[in-house]
Parts: sequence; C-alpha cells; structure tokens
Amino acid sequence: MSTRTNAAGGPGLLTDRYELTMLASFIADGSVGRQAVFEAFARRLPVGRRYGVVAGLGRLVPLLHDFRFDADEVAWLLDERVIDAATADYLRAFRFNGTIEAIPEGELYFPGTPVVTVAGTLGECIVLETLVLSVLNHDSAIASAAARMVTAAGGRPEDGGRALIEMGSRRTHEEAAVATARAAYIAGFASTSNLAAGYRHGIPTVGTAAHAFTLAHDSELDAFRSQVRAHGPGTSLLVDTYDIPTGIRNAVTAAREAGATGPGAIRIDSGDLAEEAWRARALLDELGAADTRITVTSDLDEYVITALQDAPIDGYGAGTRVATGSGHPTAGMVYKLVAIEQPDGTMRPVAKKARDKASVGGRKTVWRVFDDDGAIVQELHVPGSTEVPERLRGTRHESPQVTVVREGVVQHVPTIEESRRTCAAALAALSPHERDVTDGEPVVVPTVLLPAPQEA
Amino acid sequence: MSTRTNAAGGPGLLTDRYELTMLASFIADGSVGRQAVFEAFARRLPVGRRYGVVAGLGRLVPLLHDFRFDADEVAWLLDERVIDAATADYLRAFRFNGTIEAIPEGELYFPGTPVVTVAGTLGECIVLETLVLSVLNHDSAIASAAARMVTAAGGRPEDGGRALIEMGSRRTHEEAAVATARAAYIAGFASTSNLAAGYRHGIPTVGTAAHAFTLAHDSELDAFRSQVRAHGPGTSLLVDTYDIPTGIRNAVTAAREAGATGPGAIRIDSGDLAEEAWRARALLDELGAADTRITVTSDLDEYVITALQDAPIDGYGAGTRVATGSGHPTAGMVYKLVAIEQPDGTMRPVAKKARDKASVGGRKTVWRVFDDDGAIVQELHVPGSTEVPERLRGTRHESPQVTVVREGVVQHVPTIEESRRTCAAALAALSPHERDVTDGEPVVVPTVLLPAPQEA
Repeated sequence: MSTRTNAAGGPGLLTDRYELTMLASFIADGSVGRQAVFEAFARRLPVGRRYGVVAGLGRLVPLLHDFRFDADEVAWLLDERVIDAATADYLRAFRFNGTIEAIPEGELYFPGTPVVTVAGTLGECIVLETLVLSVLNHDSAIASAAARMVTAAGGRPEDGGRALIEMGSRRTHEEAAVATARAAYIAGFASTSNLAAGYRHGIPTVGTAAHAFTLAHDSELDAFRSQVRAHGPGTSLLVDTYDIPTGIRNAVTAAREAGATGPGAIRIDSGDLAEEAWRARALLDELGAADTRITVTSDLDEYVITALQDAPIDGYGAGTRVATGSGHPTAGMVYKLVAIEQPDGTMRPVAKKARDKASVGGRKTVWRVFDDDGAIVQELHVPGSTEVPERLRGTRHESPQVTVVREGVVQHVPTIEESRRTCAAALAALSPHERDVTDGEPVVVPTVLLPAPQEA
Repeated sequence: MSTRTNAAGGPGLLTDRYELTMLASFIADGSVGRQAVFEAFARRLPVGRRYGVVAGLGRLVPLLHDFRFDADEVAWLLDERVIDAATADYLRAFRFNGTIEAIPEGELYFPGTPVVTVAGTLGECIVLETLVLSVLNHDSAIASAAARMVTAAGGRPEDGGRALIEMGSRRTHEEAAVATARAAYIAGFASTSNLAAGYRHGIPTVGTAAHAFTLAHDSELDAFRSQVRAHGPGTSLLVDTYDIPTGIRNAVTAAREAGATGPGAIRIDSGDLAEEAWRARALLDELGAADTRITVTSDLDEYVITALQDAPIDGYGAGTRVATGSGHPTAGMVYKLVAIEQPDGTMRPVAKKARDKASVGGRKTVWRVFDDDGAIVQELHVPGSTEVPERLRGTRHESPQVTVVREGVVQHVPTIEESRRTCAAALAALSPHERDVTDGEPVVVPTVLLPAPQEA
C-alpha cells in the first residue's frame, strides 16, 4: 500500500469513513438533498467542572471553507471501494453551502448547550461531522482547562492576574500543540512557547533557555554570560540546573556585568516551588535585584497555581496539564441530527431513544437569563422556535447564538483577540464561587422548554 | 497581527521559542558547532503500567528530513526579534546532518530507556527537541494504551484475538486523529475509521452508519433497506437507535430481502454491552442469522474489553479512550543533553542535578537480557561505551537500538506493517502476567551500569 506524506490532502479526508458510507446511501436513496439540522453539544461537563469554554470556531470555519476532495483523494476512495461512482461525482463537486450558528468562541457552555448548529442538506451536514467534533472537542477541552488556570492565577495580566505562559507543545501532537496555544490564549493565557502559534495566529511567544543550555557550557556562569550577551540582561535565566542559590548569584553576576541590577527574571523548574520562590525572592532582594521577576514551571495546573497564590511569584509556565485538558483531554461533544425535512417541506424533529444516550429533537434556540449584575442564572433551550418565550418577559435575557456561515458564505468570524475578550467577560460575569476551581456543579443546568401543546 | 492558514509553513516552527533563543546564544558564543548527544526517555511509566510502546518514529523521520525554515518564516522570526541576523543565516541553511539511533517503533520501553538518541552539533540537536518530543510523546501514549486494549481483546485478529477498530478521531485534534489511528494500528488494532489514515498510511479503514442515518429515514427498516441497497447485505447495521430487539429484526429483514440469511454484522452502541450482546446473539440465532457478527462500541477501554471477554462479541470499536491514551494522553518523555564535546575533541558526560529531576550523564547503550523463552529479564544502560558489558557474557542479550538517520541520511525506516509485527512479537514475548492490564510494576526497571573505575 502506498504511503503519502503527512501534509497530503485537504481537510476532507479528516473524516470517519462512515460519513461517506452514509452519504453513499443517501445519494442512492434520493434523500441526500433533504434539509437537515445537526447540533453539536456536550451531554455533560467533566465531573466537578462548573462550565466549559467554547473554542475552535476560528479554526473550524476556514477548514470548512476549504473542505474539498481533490482528484487523487476521490480516486483513492473509489479504489478502496469506500464510495461508488455517484458519490465520487458528489464529492468532486462538494462545497458547503449550508448555514452554521454557534455560541461565540470564548463564551461559556453548559450540559446540552447547542454549541454549533449546522443546517443544510443531509449530505453536506453529514460529511462535516468528524471535523466539526475534532476541532471543537480538542480546542474546547484545552480552553476549559486553561480558563481555570487563568482564574487560579487571578485573571489575565491586563486584569491584574499573574501571567501564564502556555508551554505544553512537547506533550501533545505537534499540530495539536498549535491549537493548544491558541485555545489557552483565548482563555486568558498571556503567551505561548510555540512559534507556529505566533506565526499563524499572532499569539505572543516567549522562551529563554533549558537546562541543556547550562549543561552545554563549562560552567553555569559561562552559560548565563552567553545568554545575557546574546539577549541582554532583561532575559530570563533558569537557575536550578545545579544549586538554586548559587544559580541566583550567578544570574545576578551575569546581569551586573552587563550593567543591570539583576536579570529580567529567573525561572525555577523543580523542588517545592513555594518554598523556592520565597527563598529566591529573599536572596534576590538581599542581592539588590528587587526588580528581578520570578517565574515557576513544573507540572502546574489550576490546583498547584491556587496553592502558590501567596508565594512571591510573578509568572507561571503551564505545560503538560494545559495541553492535556487538566485531566479531561476531550470535551466529549457529540453531533446529532435534530430535524429533517419532510416531503411536504416541513421540518420533522427527530431524537434518538437509545438507552443512556437519548437526545431531544428539534433545532434549539438558546436563551440565557441574567440577574441585575449580569450573572447568568438560567439557560433555556427552545426547540423549533426562535421566538422569545413568554416566560422570559420582563427578564434580562439574550440568545448567545450567532451566524458564522450563511448559505456557504463566511460571516464575521471574531479575531482571536475578540474571542479572548469574550472569554474574559464571560468569566468576569461569574461569581467568585462559580469561578472556583474546586469541584462543583454546573453554574446552570439548562432547561428544555418544549413547545406549548397546541404547537406540538 | 497577521494570521496565516493552518497549513502554512513546514515543521520548523513547530518548535518552542527557547530552542531558537538557545541557538542564538550558542551561535554568539561560538559553541553551536560542538558535538553533542541528547537522549529522549521517560523518567517513569504512568502509575500501574508495566511497559510503554515506542511509536512515532515513522512519522518523525520524514518530519526531521523536511525540517527547514523558509524565507517568510525567517523574516517573521527576525521581525519578532526571536532571532538575530547570524541566527537567521544559520536557519536559512539549516538541515539536519546528525545521527539518530532509536528503539524501533513497536518495541517496548521502560523507565529511563533512551528511546531516541540524537547526536550532532549542539545547534542541530537543540532545534529538534520540541518536534522530537511532540511526536514521541503523543504517538507512544496512544500505542501504549492501544497495546493494552489489544491484549484485553486476546491479541491481534491474526493471532486469534477479536478485531479492534480505532474510531476516536472525533475526540482529538484532527491531525492527532491521523497519528492516533497509526499508533493504534502499530499496537495491533485491526483498522480505523479515519480516512486520512488510510490515504496517508495504508491502514485498513472501516465504517458504516451512525444513529443520524436511521433518524434521517422515515423508519428504521427504511434506513436499513437503503444501507443494504447501497452497500450489500454484508454491511454492518446499527440496531440501537430505538429498541434493540426490533432493530435486530429489522436488520435481518433488510438483509433477507437482499437474499442473505442476515446482515454481515450488527453494532450495539449503548446499554449494558455484555447483556445486550448475549440477547442479540440469542435473537440472531433464533432468527437463523447465526453468521451475523456482533460489534460493540461505547467508551471501551482495556478494562471494559476485559470485562466483555466472555460475551458473544466479534469486534470492538474503541474511540475516546484510545485517542486519549486511556487516562495517560502523553508519554512524558524528556530530551536531555547527556554529552558535549570538549575543546580536545573528547565527549564530556553531563547531567542535571536539579532536585527530583536528576539525570544520568553519558550516551547510553541499551542492553536487554532474555531468558530461554525469549522473555526480557533485565535492561542495562551503559553510558559512554558500546562494548558488551562483562557481566553479560554467557547470557542471551542484544541491544535494541538501531540507526535510523546517519549523518543526515535516512537509513531503513520500518514500514507500518513491520512496526506492527515488532509490537506483536514484543508483546508475545511477555508472560501473561507481564501483559496483564491490571495495575502492576514495570516488567523491568533498567539498571545504569557505570563504567569501571579505571575508565572514569
């Protein structure tokens, strides 16, 4: 069998085979052009989580726009007998002409919230399933974990919190790493170590040196002198390759030789981080390097960061735990058919009755109800109607859903900076208790508002 | 700030910024051309795991071969002041001319095993760190989990086990999904749902239908008839959208109308899978569809598969749990400098002394010792020597390390089928106790054999 390079092909083949198997059946039985509505949602949040953060839309929309099958791919699908000739014709001409509504990137979601609603022909909706879920499940898992770390760090730096650096690239697939940096930034991280994330998405990048840098030199002081010569005394020096107090003294010496009172920052990557930070701060101050910042790294997550909140630390680097969703590496969203066109042109709500996986039929409008302080107090899902429900009269409410693609045409897709502001505002609207990183219940458990009997 | 498409750029920028910061310092202080040796290894296995499975080499080698920085990328790095002019010149001309040794893909690894050894100039070794770790940590985490599921399923189908289908694409980043399919196949899975994995790597793909397919039709029987018309009665029908016994009867009816005794297979995706499989088998047999196979899916992992071993099941589909490493989504490997060239041309072993993260200096040769049945009983790491240690005389031993890149030239890289056979043989050489999926200790805890005093 032939092997192609990793880069081969567009996003079309990033798809489960059964989507095309179903498509072939729909083409054969004539239903491929029927209008359909699918919703992507998480049945539940990970145990103990109070909210999820939507992320991935900014990556998904361009991927859907490029969703194609080129001649080689179609030929391969035919060779492998994945599809028949009629399906090959369909895929060669494929482009998505449907409509996508979504909860904006950076907003919160709760159990059952329809995060993305895809409406179009049965054929065009079904082939998008895998890619929609891959992007949303990965990116939302990262953003949901990252938002908790940002909360533990006291918010974004611009909101008075301590800066968080995303540095998990080496712990996850090389392309997932770029998406991880993007999702963490949306959730409020200050920067990333990942250069491709800077190049592709404009995210601030940072990075100084590893232990190997010190080990490669004849002495730690030689290493620090080299780094200061190349990058100036404002650089961050990693001081724990050998002995931390000696490392700090060497760091200050190297910076002094370059005319500064101390290095811009020191980094500590091992040991009891609170204890080491206190000792480091005292030593730096004693040495007259009061302006030198302290950054700590080493398996940080929202719990460790919370425990470090009183220590004299200026910034955190989070790696493994952010890149793996802090114990929940996937958001668990599913993509379900909720309505299908009938021969008379009306839409029939449909729902699965399978034990433990039942779903609610009908395209749902989401309504969020807020108290006078702007805190969310209720979320309603109304199948089959976009009207404001009677019971919301007199309340402060809005529907967070926005149209991101209309009949195949991409609408306004927020920039990453806009999504980051959306997330900060959504987190700020929660009470401190609701933002807490300890285990709790979802902030709201949405209610499905079934239509009044006369509409049934 | 500009935003580029996901596809922009080669693998060079899939790198932590600090690799280039260190490179700039090495260029400035003149050490960039010194010979160096780095080793990638896991300090420990996830708690309870008895072995890890090496995966990713077959993806890594082509990525390293293409590891370049194009003009736009270098210009961006300069603009962002990540690098200076001298480093820009270095990156424009970059290609890896070093040597890479590795434990073959599909082989086992244990705590501290140097899975990949990179030797070359300090500059060329340091810039590869992030990509080496991203690929190894992701792919090995998946393969290590997948091998346990294969063991629980009784081995590969060709060895008498039940077939495992990898179907986790929707639960992970869209590109990680392709690598997941590849790693799971190496570990012994029979096939994948991911089409790109078939297209790029030649892995067998499978897939039939989702609940949406049934819901999109006026009745379940209509849906099954449509699928059988398009794909023949050998297809696999998903029978749990509404009521399983009714679904099975509809499946048999649709297959009978096409001239078969029953469908090729039925799939059950909800409920108590053992109980449902027993009921389904009885009903199929009663209906005269004794040849219809039963496949189950729904959050399967090595523990659930073990619990299902007595149920009348022919195949398993594993999704979320394989794509997330069954609780351990990253292998936790690190990449450490172990030796550096001295001015006199000799190599000096180096090691980090940082608390809780100490390493052992010197380039290590791995020796594995086997008993008469071919089971591994010991692993030795010998720094600074490739000679067979004295103490291994008279034992059955070998070094598993092979050269995959020699002075920049790719050597034989095993095909995915060869790696899959390597893994099957490595697992077969373990005792049933050592393969067990319950929590246990590593099969071997390697010993570092320090050189005799006169060699020190």
